[in-house]
Amino acid sequence: MTNRLIATYRVRSDAKSIAARAKAIAVEQSVEMPLEAIDDAAIHTDIVGRVEAIGDRGDGSFTVRIGLATATTGPEVGQLINMMFGNTSIHDDVTFEDVELPPAMLAAFAGPRFGTAGLRARVGAAGRAMTCTALKPQGLPTARLADLARRFALAGIDYIKDDHGLADQAYSPYAERVPAIAAATAAAARETGRQTRYLPSLSGDLDALRRQVAIARDCGLDTVLIAPMVVGLPSLHALVRGNPDVAFVAHPAFGGAARVAPPLLFGKLFRLFGADATIFTNYAGRFRYPPETCRALADAARGAWGGLKPCVPVPAGGMTPDRVPEMLDFYGRDVMLLIGGALLAARERLTEETAAFQRTVERHAYR
Amino acid sequence: MTNRLIATYRVRSDAKSIAARAKAIAVEQSVEMPLEAIDDAAIHTDIVGRVEAIGDRGDGSFTVRIGLATATTGPEVGQLINMMFGNTSIHDDVTFEDVELPPAMLAAFAGPRFGTAGLRARVGAAGRAMTCTALKPQGLPTARLADLARRFALAGIDYIKDDHGLADQAYSPYAERVPAIAAATAAAARETGRQTRYLPSLSGDLDALRRQVAIARDCGLDTVLIAPMVVGLPSLHALVRGNPDVAFVAHPAFGGAARVAPPLLFGKLFRLFGADATIFTNYAGRFRYPPETCRALADAARGAWGGLKPCVPVPAGGMTPDRVPEMLDFYGRDVMLLIGGALLAARERLTEETAAFQRTVERHAYR
Repeated sequence: MTNRLIATYRVRSDAKSIAARAKAIAVEQSVEMPLEAIDDAAIHTDIVGRVEAIGDRGDGSFTVRIGLATATTGPEVGQLINMMFGNTSIHDDVTFEDVELPPAMLAAFAGPRFGTAGLRARVGAAGRAMTCTALKPQGLPTARLADLARRFALAGIDYIKDDHGLADQAYSPYAERVPAIAAATAAAARETGRQTRYLPSLSGDLDALRRQVAIARDCGLDTVLIAPMVVGLPSLHALVRGNPDVAFVAHPAFGGAARVAPPLLFGKLFRLFGADATIFTNYAGRFRYPPETCRALADAARGAWGGLKPCVPVPAGGMTPDRVPEMLDFYGRDVMLLIGGALLAARERLTEETAAFQRTVERHAYR
Repeated sequence: MTNRLIATYRVRSDAKSIAARAKAIAVEQSVEMPLEAIDDAAIHTDIVGRVEAIGDRGDGSFTVRIGLATATTGPEVGQLINMMFGNTSIHDDVTFEDVELPPAMLAAFAGPRFGTAGLRARVGAAGRAMTCTALKPQGLPTARLADLARRFALAGIDYIKDDHGLADQAYSPYAERVPAIAAATAAAARETGRQTRYLPSLSGDLDALRRQVAIARDCGLDTVLIAPMVVGLPSLHALVRGNPDVAFVAHPAFGGAARVAPPLLFGKLFRLFGADATIFTNYAGRFRYPPETCRALADAARGAWGGLKPCVPVPAGGMTPDRVPEMLDFYGRDVMLLIGGALLAARERLTEETAAFQRTVERHAYR
C-alpha cells in the first residue's frame, strides 16, 4: 500500500478505447516508459500510476480517476503540478478536473494563512461580503494613482488593488508608487475611520517579488496581489511560506486554462498553495464562464477541504454596481466583490458611486 | 509614436462582431477599463492597445494583430506574458499565435546563450543532428540510474537527460543522484573518448533551482533540463541570466494548459527567455501534434529572429530508432533527437541499441 493522490481527468474517447487511454495516462503521469521494460516489482506496485475508476459520462467523454504515488511528487508545488498534469496537459482530449490529496499532503502545503476570516478581520467586515476596486489605467503617474486611491478610500471601500497590469513601469515604478498609494490610502482611512487596505500588485522573479513584498511591509501593508500563473506557482508558495503575516490575493492572468478546469486551478490549487483570496471572471461579464462554473469555483475555493482555511472567491471582470444584489444572492456573504472600471467611469462622482457600492454590500439582506 | 510589440491572435468570430472583438482585446491587454473614462490624451495615444490589422481566415476565425506599447511591459518576462496574454488567455475564443518584438526588446531578453552551435560544440557533433536519451523510470535508486547512464554513455550518445519526472524524491534525491550520474557518465565518456553530457532535471522555486544548478556545476556539468511552465517563466530567465556558462534545455511539461500556439510557446517564447534547446512532442508519437505544427515549432525555435541564437528543436514523445532517418529528413541537421523508452526497452542490449541509434544519426545522408 502506497500513499496516493487521486487525479480526476475528463477524457474524450470512444468506449472501446477508454481503458487503454486511461492506462496510458496513468503511465504518462508516473514512469513515462514502456511498463514491460521495468524489472523492479516495487516500481510496478509503488510508483506506476493506477487507474482507480472509469465512468462513462454519456456525452462521448469519460471520467478517469488515476491514483498517483505521493512519493513521486513530495511536498513541492512544481513537482506536484508536473506529476498531476505535466505531459498530459499536451493531449487535447484530456481536461484535468479535480484532485484529492491525502491529509499529510494537505497539511504540508497548508493553504491560506488568513483566508476568509483573516481578510474580513483586516477590514472589519464581520458577517458580510467584502468589497474591492482597482487602480487604473496604467500609464497614469504615481500621483494620479494615489489620488484615485484616496478618493476610493474616502468612500469607505474595503480593498483597493493595483490593476494587475501595474508592475514596475517607468510611469509609476513600484518603489515610488506603492509608498505613495499606501500613504494616500492610510490618510483617507484615518478620515473615514475605516480600515481600507491597499493591495500592491507584485511581478517579476522571486528576487524581485521578495524586494516588492519588503517594500510593501515597510509601508505598513499586509495584503498583496499576485498572478500565480504569471510568476509561476512555486514563487507563490515560496512567498506564502516566507511571509507569515502577509495575505495573498491571487489574480487569474495567464491562467487561461483551456485544459485545467477553472474550479480546480483558480479554486482548489491556488488555495492549496496559499492564496487567501482568488479573483476570477464572473458570469455575464466580459468573460464567458457560465454560472455553474463560477459556483463550482467558489465552492472549491471556500468549501471544506481537510484543515485548510477557506479562500475568498472574488468574482470580477466587467462587474457593475447594479449587479451587487444579484451577486450577493448568488455567492452569499463569504465573498469579496471587485468592481473597477465601472467605478472609474463615474469620474468626478467616483467617491459617491464607490460609497454607494459599499453601502449596498453592507446593507444587503442575505436570503 | 510609441514603441510597440505586435501580438497576433486567432479569434473565432463572425464578420460583423470582429472589429469590436479586436478592439476589446486591445483594451483588455492594455488599460483594461472603459476608454471613455480615460481623460489623459497621452494614455490614449501611448498606452492603449491598437488594432493594427484584422484578416479573415475564411474558416469562422480571424487573424487579429494588436500593437501593445512596450512601456507597459518593460524587459521582464512575467509582465511581458501578462500584457500579451494575461486576461485574454481566459477567453476561449482566442488563441495567442505569434509575437513580433522591437529590436531593443529582443536584445534585452537576449535569448539562448549557446543555442545550436553551442550545444553541438559541447558534444563534438559538428555538421550533424545531436542525439539524446532519458533516464527512467523514476523510483529506481540512484545507483541503478547511474548504471543506466553508464550504459547509455558507453554507446557514445551525445546527451543523457534525467526523466522530467525526476526531481528531489526520496528514492533518488537530487544531491545524491546528480553527482553519481555525472561521475558514471564521465567515466564512460573517458572510455569512449566521446563528450557525452548528462543533463540533470531541475525543479522547485528559484532558491531550490539555484542550489541545484550549483550542485550541477560542482559536478562539472554545464547543461541542464528545466520545465519553464512548471517552474514559472521568470525563474527560467533568472537562471539563464545568473549562469552564463550553463546551457538550458526546456521541457514542455504543463505547457499544454495555456491556449498559446505550440510554435509560439515552445519555439519562440522559450527561446526568447533563454532556452538553448526545446523539447516538444513530435508528430506520430504518443501525442497529437500534426507535422505542420512540428515544422512551425522547429522554424520558430531556430529560424532567423533578430540577433538571437537559434534554439535546438528536440522532437520526442514515444520516438523509436527506426524513425530516425524519417525525422532527420524532416528536420535536417539542426536538431537533437531524443529517444528514451524505446532504448530502455532494449534492456540488456541497451548499449548496443543506443550505439546503433547514434550511428544512424552520425551516418545519415542528408537530402
